[in-house]
Amino acid sequence: MALDPLSTTFAALADPTRRAILGRLISGEASVTELAAPFDMSLPAVTKHLKVLQRAGLISQSREAQWRPCRLEAHAMRQAADWMEPYRKQWERRLDRLDDYLRETQKSARRVRKKK
Amino acid sequence: MALDPLSTTFAALADPTRRAILGRLISGEASVTELAAPFDMSLPAVTKHLKVLQRAGLISQSREAQWRPCRLEAHAMRQAADWMEPYRKQWERRLDRLDDYLRETQKSARRVRKKK
Repeated sequence: MALDPLSTTFAALADPTRRAILGRLISGEASVTELAAPFDMSLPAVTKHLKVLQRAGLISQSREAQWRPCRLEAHAMRQAADWMEPYRKQWERRLDRLDDYLRETQKSARRVRKKK
Repeated sequence: MALDPLSTTFAALADPTRRAILGRLISGEASVTELAAPFDMSLPAVTKHLKVLQRAGLISQSREAQWRPCRLEAHAMRQAADWMEPYRKQWERRLDRLDDYLRETQKSARRVRKKK
């Protein structure tokens, strides 16, 4: 089943190996062999993960250089991060409310102590 | 295969129906029937999606009220949003560099025009 772009991005991120590959690429381009090195995994298995990331637009692979380096395409994550924004705002509002509540409770406790 | 928490969150988000359910819950609690209403889907199919969201900790379902409302647990998305943070910073840095480059190009163009 063909996924919509946002689902494709989230599905690509739902794997620790693929997230580790992206984590490596954040510091610069790398060849497939370099990317495979830290994993106890066959080269074809790593290549499969790279294809998933490429389909999601999260990485690209140069066709020019002989070592065909992979590079991060961080902007592809933007749509996913933008989608999360209203939820982030909601938990921040909840934290603010909790903060207000705790501050009020502290004030009341101080008033009770003063009266004693 | 049991997924790690972050993979579970991303996998739960990799579906348009589940994202639409979360979108409905952002405005407040809702019953399973209310959540199912906008979808051309059987109640068991919707329940299956709700279970995926519940396992990921993204929603909770009250056991007390008879209508067992579902509610959003937005903070569960925080780990996912935090994971994205360095990538967001990277694309922002790239946009800044592009911005600088365009500004420089504009300046040079202006200088060339003045000399003519």
